[in-house]
Amino acid sequence: MRLATRANGTPDGELMIVSDDGARWCAAGADWPNLLTAIERWDAAEPALRALAAQDSGDWDALDAANVRAPLPRSWQWLDGSAYTTHGELMQIAFGLDPVPTDRPLMYQGLSDRFLAPTETARFPSQADGIDFEGEFGVIVDAVPMGVSVEQAARHIRLLVQINDWSLRAIAPIEMKTGFGWVQAKPPCSMAPFAVTPDVLGSDWRDGRVCLELGVDWNAKRFGRVDGSEMAFSFPELVAHAARTRDLVAGTVIGSGTVSNATYATRGSACISERRAIEIIAHGAPQTPFMADGDSVHMVAKSSDGAAPFGAIDQRVAVIAPN
Amino acid sequence: MRLATRANGTPDGELMIVSDDGARWCAAGADWPNLLTAIERWDAAEPALRALAAQDSGDWDALDAANVRAPLPRSWQWLDGSAYTTHGELMQIAFGLDPVPTDRPLMYQGLSDRFLAPTETARFPSQADGIDFEGEFGVIVDAVPMGVSVEQAARHIRLLVQINDWSLRAIAPIEMKTGFGWVQAKPPCSMAPFAVTPDVLGSDWRDGRVCLELGVDWNAKRFGRVDGSEMAFSFPELVAHAARTRDLVAGTVIGSGTVSNATYATRGSACISERRAIEIIAHGAPQTPFMADGDSVHMVAKSSDGAAPFGAIDQRVAVIAPN
Repeated sequence: MRLATRANGTPDGELMIVSDDGARWCAAGADWPNLLTAIERWDAAEPALRALAAQDSGDWDALDAANVRAPLPRSWQWLDGSAYTTHGELMQIAFGLDPVPTDRPLMYQGLSDRFLAPTETARFPSQADGIDFEGEFGVIVDAVPMGVSVEQAARHIRLLVQINDWSLRAIAPIEMKTGFGWVQAKPPCSMAPFAVTPDVLGSDWRDGRVCLELGVDWNAKRFGRVDGSEMAFSFPELVAHAARTRDLVAGTVIGSGTVSNATYATRGSACISERRAIEIIAHGAPQTPFMADGDSVHMVAKSSDGAAPFGAIDQRVAVIAPN
Repeated sequence: MRLATRANGTPDGELMIVSDDGARWCAAGADWPNLLTAIERWDAAEPALRALAAQDSGDWDALDAANVRAPLPRSWQWLDGSAYTTHGELMQIAFGLDPVPTDRPLMYQGLSDRFLAPTETARFPSQADGIDFEGEFGVIVDAVPMGVSVEQAARHIRLLVQINDWSLRAIAPIEMKTGFGWVQAKPPCSMAPFAVTPDVLGSDWRDGRVCLELGVDWNAKRFGRVDGSEMAFSFPELVAHAARTRDLVAGTVIGSGTVSNATYATRGSACISERRAIEIIAHGAPQTPFMADGDSVHMVAKSSDGAAPFGAIDQRVAVIAPN
């Protein structure tokens, strides 16, 4: 089942069920006005929404991409991991940081009061902050009790999403060196249009990982085509890590961190900072600049048959003070 | 004006206006069902709520402390600073960390999907995690646009609160060393019963600081009596720092970090970890253990005339696995 959210003037938008081809939609109805409401009572919501989805006979309204918001326009909690080992190693080079222990998941709490729409312009105060995209995957859980096992955590993963985790690279290492994590370096993320139940991915959802290829284009030029399968920790492990000392509120989004592969030489990267680290290794200095005012980024995850279960992120950068 | 929240079976509770002596209450009414709703339209809410408050003729219902929740039982964003220089210096000793730059505010994003009630038992998975309280102050802002000046930020501070920022000290330095900040080390915070408009504090709200004495008792023994005035950065500076690269959603809570004073030898501390650092300085090793199952903490901020504008936090610790 594929879900999306339509702008309706409310902060949470209106929940839509979307046809398997992503082209048409039907309202989820008054019982499930938005996705946050549905995920809070998912055991009741899922069968009701699936019953509606089964009624699609091709006569639903055409989906208007301009009216589509993030599937979850806001949530009470966003916890982003950094589960791709190659990304972590390259970012230490990019930021000039010491290696960190890899025996437990890396995770920070980020801004969740808004997730930008898939085609929403991303506003930043200054180009000098080092504007970068980060292509990644995420899961949405229902309420998870503190202390769950990895096996139990897996059963709370209800929906999968694709995320662009906007990052400001000039600020990131300054904040990291305090040990407090990121605030200024992590403005709001964006989501691709569709949140999907894991069954939509078939065998591409395996070992608790989204095993799709994520294509990333910067200003309409291919930048990376990365493989989601190389997470050192699975999503259930990330959920259990997050729930070690807290109950996770329903609607919590847990991110994979930037998708990255050991074969970056051929696959490219899902963020600019990683490419700059590769350039530092090769040439002693970064060569690729960060994003400029007006730049665009396009991200779409595809299965081997060419299907794009999450739809595409297509965003443009607007810098308030371009210099 | 003093506001509080009453349990009514909803996640956000029911907003109450509380009498100046904190003893009686009146419902804020259907237009302002809860504090989150009110802060989202504070320019309209404040005069309406003040008009109701002015009607108190001593016949309001008595406040039932057992039914009082955190004034803001949940919010979309909680950003906690660490603005007391002495606290920062002592925590570096406690955690064995290198000094961090002090030219900009320290801040992390924490769990905001729930704030515990002032008398709610705090549940933790294990005593071995190093259970600690942290007494601090906070401000609640209405919507703050990205890039505000410190002067503009000051005008968005609508309410003041008193907070117990529960912390797990065995995990904190492990998470700090990753640079990602705290997830497991920071379970939900608690709030004292009353959120107050700044005018309630009179001259004790000055230079953007809560200049009250915060008394902290652990198991009914005085632990600290710390002075809130020694923040290196004011609350308006913390708000402007938080809003540097993001719009702040209405209801964002910004914390001061643990209140701490250069005269800690006579004033004591507002968290155990700080006392342990002082013991390390004096004796080469910490002597005070962290909290145990069943322990209590009491925190109340008082003005020089003995008034307690926020009321008191009175919590007990419940450890799920005491060993």
